Amino acid sequence: MAKIRVPGFQFAGVACGIKKSRKRDLALIFSERPATAAALFTTNSIKAAAVLVGMKRMRRGLVQAVVVNSGNANSCTGPRGVRDAEAMCREVGHRLGIDPRLVIPSSTGLIGVPLPMTKIRQGIAKAVSILSPDSFTHAAEAILTTDRFVKITTTSCLLKGRKVVITGMVKGAGMIAPNMATMLAYILTDAAVEPRCLNAILRRSAEETFNRITVDGDMSTNDTVLFLANGAARNSPVRQGSGEERVLREETQRVMKELALKLVEDGEGTTKVVEIRVDGVRSIAEAKKIAFAVANSKLVKTAFFGEDPNFGRIMVAIGCAGVAISPEKIDVFFNHVCVVRKGVGLASKEREASRILKRPSFMVKIHLHQGKESASVWTSDLSHEYVRINSAYRT
Amino acid sequence: MAKIRVPGFQFAGVACGIKKSRKRDLALIFSERPATAAALFTTNSIKAAAVLVGMKRMRRGLVQAVVVNSGNANSCTGPRGVRDAEAMCREVGHRLGIDPRLVIPSSTGLIGVPLPMTKIRQGIAKAVSILSPDSFTHAAEAILTTDRFVKITTTSCLLKGRKVVITGMVKGAGMIAPNMATMLAYILTDAAVEPRCLNAILRRSAEETFNRITVDGDMSTNDTVLFLANGAARNSPVRQGSGEERVLREETQRVMKELALKLVEDGEGTTKVVEIRVDGVRSIAEAKKIAFAVANSKLVKTAFFGEDPNFGRIMVAIGCAGVAISPEKIDVFFNHVCVVRKGVGLASKEREASRILKRPSFMVKIHLHQGKESASVWTSDLSHEYVRINSAYRT
Repeated sequence: MAKIRVPGFQFAGVACGIKKSRKRDLALIFSERPATAAALFTTNSIKAAAVLVGMKRMRRGLVQAVVVNSGNANSCTGPRGVRDAEAMCREVGHRLGIDPRLVIPSSTGLIGVPLPMTKIRQGIAKAVSILSPDSFTHAAEAILTTDRFVKITTTSCLLKGRKVVITGMVKGAGMIAPNMATMLAYILTDAAVEPRCLNAILRRSAEETFNRITVDGDMSTNDTVLFLANGAARNSPVRQGSGEERVLREETQRVMKELALKLVEDGEGTTKVVEIRVDGVRSIAEAKKIAFAVANSKLVKTAFFGEDPNFGRIMVAIGCAGVAISPEKIDVFFNHVCVVRKGVGLASKEREASRILKRPSFMVKIHLHQGKESASVWTSDLSHEYVRINSAYRT
Repeated sequence: MAKIRVPGFQFAGVACGIKKSRKRDLALIFSERPATAAALFTTNSIKAAAVLVGMKRMRRGLVQAVVVNSGNANSCTGPRGVRDAEAMCREVGHRLGIDPRLVIPSSTGLIGVPLPMTKIRQGIAKAVSILSPDSFTHAAEAILTTDRFVKITTTSCLLKGRKVVITGMVKGAGMIAPNMATMLAYILTDAAVEPRCLNAILRRSAEETFNRITVDGDMSTNDTVLFLANGAARNSPVRQGSGEERVLREETQRVMKELALKLVEDGEGTTKVVEIRVDGVRSIAEAKKIAFAVANSKLVKTAFFGEDPNFGRIMVAIGCAGVAISPEKIDVFFNHVCVVRKGVGLASKEREASRILKRPSFMVKIHLHQGKESASVWTSDLSHEYVRINSAYRT
């Protein structure tokens, strides 16, 4: 892959010793000019210090640098945690010669342990000293925890004839669930975008991408999706309701969808990526409720791992979703193979369905025949490796 | 253990070939006289045929026989499934010479496969021919699926000087969750109890026992808890509001609590039984919501398996429960060891907490300091064995 660049942005990813593995654990994203910013933060009632600090700073809507440490979540660390997160920003501001209030912090990793501030200060100094437009991948590496691979993507489009770049990096692996799971995502563009428009694009795109995936159903205390538009492309700022907004939103959504699917693919222990599609319901909310009930069922997820077309467990999960349904109308498919017709299991289709489940990705399609809406979510299987990773995480 | 007997009841448990293992797979419970009956059925919107038939029959409130097959759930089998469940009852009524409407069917096992009715008819004939007051354990064996051990208990008490017996058998293992998970439970007493009183005792006892446990959070299509009181003790029928009701309820609840904990202990792959106790909340509903959020978290359950006192994951689950909380007030304990004080993790307590997690059972106590109510639920860990059983179930 060619080096990813976004005009006007510089990056660094360094190892400062938070991770025992000596892998990169501190990332810096720097915009040469203050960027218009929009953000989404975890909906967990317990928020990490960086999220509390970030939420306050986002009120101004301008961001010039993002500092991320991995290996330590700085969560459940009380007032000290907040002071440490603020100190990270001050250090970055000081080293870069910018207003510290333009710096957003993020942390991911273990909960309940104070940040090693000496290491972090040294890491910041080093990161500032090697900032480069070419170090996007280093930064994307430095935000990872139990992730198996770097998750990045980039695209570009024309806004009134002017080329703009939209690029993203994301970190995930465990605690992936809708409404911001353990997920850090940084979406960067050199487009100029009006603040309200940037916000609207971020919210709508996240609703159809990051909020439609699940690995284990838990939301973390640290999740952050940040969307920065620094205007280096010198286009006239994109306004809400314009044709340019539509183009930019489509491309942004494409970037976020690709990153969201990479998150599922890299879910802890994932061997399958499965789309759960619910058709024929009265509302998108109903569709999502049913799809997530299926996508989060431990019994369904272990059956996926076992490549077992166990439609019974899917029916059980549908029935538990808390949506009024008519069992005798339900059809269930694995890709094109119908395994439940009008609520009755078709055992004869099992061999054909088995072949579909051997693939690394497939679709479960559920048709309820009680409305015209539909929605999809994406989930992983639940494997031995998931249990191994999560039972041994800290030992 | 001495043989369990309940005056006026007879039992049988036979192998009729539904299970490939040739283990017992058909149970019969017979009361020499029609018994007053109360029942709870699954709250899953998709109900198995036996549940549909049982719900209709319970309207009369009298039951003389229960026929249970394991190995096949007769669920998602359409109108044919209902006809088969009714045919099971007719066969039992015919063989026993009683009104088939006094027979309640239950099924548990694979979903979506029609019942092998020839085998079941032969099994019923055999079961009727060997009915005995001493075969309680055989019946309790015949209702099992992936269970590792027979789950039974018995007690007795005095009602106005007359001794009555309360006895129960239960089947569980997977799909254990509140509001009737894959669970079949039969509670039998020789006491005479007025119908409304029996109903009240069952509901209240289940709320504090079977509805407070979870193994994997999924509810099955087949769950049934049946409480039969045949009056063979010849006491004057227990009335609502009486002192005898209180005595009988306490004993019934003790039987159901013991069975409920056995269900968790025998949960698929369980190596730990953990009580999640939530104190200091505004209502029992809030306490249960938080306790179940923790009890069902895959990340918390894998940490239990790994004997890792990972309070961070507990905090994440608390924050996800959808209850308004003050993070800075939360205390979390493993047994007596405080690992989170006023929302801040105490890393120094980790070694001490680790020792507690090595035990086969322990308590997680969460104090929110925002009210006076509390509640407990019981859960298991999530182990390699859970994944192995559930990914290989049908293959």
